[in-house]
Amino acid sequence: MSSLLLTGIGELTTLDPAHGARTRGEDLGVLHDAALLVDGGRVAWTGPAAAAPAADSRRDLGGAAVVPGFVDSHAHLVFAGDRSAEFASRMRGQRYEAGGIRSTVAATRAATDDVLRARLDGFLREVHAQGTTTVEVKSGYGLTVADEARALRIAAERTPETTFLGAHVVPAEFADDPAGYVDLVTGEMLRACAPHARWIDVFCERGAFDGDASRAILTAGRDAGLGLRVHGNQLGPGPGVRLACELGAASVDHCTHLDDADVEALAGSSTVATLLPGVEFSTRSPYPPARRLLDAGVEVAVASDCNPGSCFTSSIPFCLALAVREMRMSPAEALRAVTWGGARALRRDDVGHLAVGARADLVVLAAPSHLHLSYRPGVPLVAGTYLGGELLRR
Amino acid sequence: MSSLLLTGIGELTTLDPAHGARTRGEDLGVLHDAALLVDGGRVAWTGPAAAAPAADSRRDLGGAAVVPGFVDSHAHLVFAGDRSAEFASRMRGQRYEAGGIRSTVAATRAATDDVLRARLDGFLREVHAQGTTTVEVKSGYGLTVADEARALRIAAERTPETTFLGAHVVPAEFADDPAGYVDLVTGEMLRACAPHARWIDVFCERGAFDGDASRAILTAGRDAGLGLRVHGNQLGPGPGVRLACELGAASVDHCTHLDDADVEALAGSSTVATLLPGVEFSTRSPYPPARRLLDAGVEVAVASDCNPGSCFTSSIPFCLALAVREMRMSPAEALRAVTWGGARALRRDDVGHLAVGARADLVVLAAPSHLHLSYRPGVPLVAGTYLGGELLRR
Ligand SMILES: [Zn+2]
Ligand SMILES: [Zn+2]
Repeated sequence: MSSLLLTGIGELTTLDPAHGARTRGEDLGVLHDAALLVDGGRVAWTGPAAAAPAADSRRDLGGAAVVPGFVDSHAHLVFAGDRSAEFASRMRGQRYEAGGIRSTVAATRAATDDVLRARLDGFLREVHAQGTTTVEVKSGYGLTVADEARALRIAAERTPETTFLGAHVVPAEFADDPAGYVDLVTGEMLRACAPHARWIDVFCERGAFDGDASRAILTAGRDAGLGLRVHGNQLGPGPGVRLACELGAASVDHCTHLDDADVEALAGSSTVATLLPGVEFSTRSPYPPARRLLDAGVEVAVASDCNPGSCFTSSIPFCLALAVREMRMSPAEALRAVTWGGARALRRDDVGHLAVGARADLVVLAAPSHLHLSYRPGVPLVAGTYLGGELLRR
Repeated sequence: MSSLLLTGIGELTTLDPAHGARTRGEDLGVLHDAALLVDGGRVAWTGPAAAAPAADSRRDLGGAAVVPGFVDSHAHLVFAGDRSAEFASRMRGQRYEAGGIRSTVAATRAATDDVLRARLDGFLREVHAQGTTTVEVKSGYGLTVADEARALRIAAERTPETTFLGAHVVPAEFADDPAGYVDLVTGEMLRACAPHARWIDVFCERGAFDGDASRAILTAGRDAGLGLRVHGNQLGPGPGVRLACELGAASVDHCTHLDDADVEALAGSSTVATLLPGVEFSTRSPYPPARRLLDAGVEVAVASDCNPGSCFTSSIPFCLALAVREMRMSPAEALRAVTWGGARALRRDDVGHLAVGARADLVVLAAPSHLHLSYRPGVPLVAGTYLGGELLRR
């Protein structure tokens, strides 16, 4: 593989400590009039354009800003069906009687592998075009042994970051026997899914899985060799955050309703608090307390939660703009949260930054500064996405 | 010019009374499994795909949704400079001492024609890619006779919807003589600008131009043959809305702070209330009372106000999503506001809908329904933009 020098970078955000980046605050290791050398799909050098080393080929970016590719650590992208009418009813303040998540489960079970694969590929093209270069994909709309395993098998063809979420909701056929469903999830379903998954996740929430069930599911997953993630404290206070910290989960996601003990637990743990503000936007709910978490020293990620029910955005730039506007993160904190933070939430060292040795996953913006990501909300500013040093065709 | 049949349209939003569209409420004249015939750059026929007439060529859209091209009736796109640092300071809750609008005025005056034209062309490519097919462009960053006339001359090369906004702010050199600036705007500057403008506009707000000055400016513009527009009631209550209604302005824009008399005046007038929710998003301000206006029977438009100070989004889909989420417009009301409403605000009959005879300005969505515009906020869903029946290349 030949080396490529990207030069004429007006503003290069490296998140590299060698360029002054810190893990908190405003300093993102930003260089101006910079260049970046790609070799073997990895970042081989960054620095002033005037001091750039020789390369097999070079490409001038004409003053554009470059940022690390976005790491979306929370997405539900294997499903079928359409729930736009449900969304429209909710926005009109009307109750919607049909289906909800059960309609997605029914449509997903009824879909062929090819339909699910084509839909996933469409989402991957869509997220790449919006600057996401690493995306986690959860199961959770099959809810049978065969359908959960199938979703993860299809997801694993496309991303290493696959998450078994059989414990998304108790399916209708177990409505009278939720404990029986937990037995299935921790038994036969886990055995069928673990070979295709890196992570296990549970929706720890009133009406879904309580603290005891969540603990049983997470420990069974850990025993099967999976890393841990938790959906917690979205709809109200609950045990999700503290359970995630206690069990050493990589991330607890939502974190909308937190008490002091939750924030303290997060600050004293290696568990990332992943905030999903697209959900609050799309459900007209209060936003998570990002400032409180950041000020307590908690590692914060921002991700999409792209899913057909509560939040159907796949746009990390949109989530970043919400993080700034609604959660009062600074533009620098928000950019770190969708790159470095997402990588921490997936326990990945090779993505979410552009230090030497990192994957050459990066985004060229149609803008002179990363600030434009929140300054120009909704505007598609991604001019080019590089994955392992290769420019993706649109 | 040969005829073109667009077929395989999964959902076609016509806003055509012949298909049941009404000027209020939810009915947008939506057809399913539809086709649309373009002839001579105009809509020549719409109806069920199965009943489509013959055409010189045909293109199958594979079930995509089609909506009228967006009409952005309020944008400031002729300027130079960058104010992203000011935005970032505001978002961090810090005061920003440098420049504000005066920095844009200085940079715009210092820019060559070619720089301003290239910037404008960049914005036009950007808005077309986001589905906007008609865009109004204001002056207002020159604030000298020559610089205002230059901005409008450049804008008029690209759009018929040009607006003279010499009364944007009193420039620094008239700080001690604001009445002298009003004399200039209504005299020599108006004479130099009117040949390049369709509209005149005034920023009627405390700290900018008061009711008397605004009246003088608008009536002078009317006498010079220009249509009237007003920036009013953005930052606080004021005379802007009632003045606009009294003088028969096509639109009064912002309408954030309204009292009962303002709403009554709008409801009894032909003046459109144009809401600009991107501004409230980007300045963390309360949103305008859209429901109150709609429920009173006022014609409402939603536009971008794209400008480097208070709102640098050019994305009408983003503004539509804010209209739904933050102003509680239904998805149908919001879509009407960015098409039909924008056209009413520009007193245009030929755009903002797809009835027979309208310009064939239309947007193909990467989605099965227009509902996805708010269901999928931030996601670039515009798969193709047709201007006068021609598909724009990306
Ligand atoms: Zn989720
Ligand atoms: Zn404006």
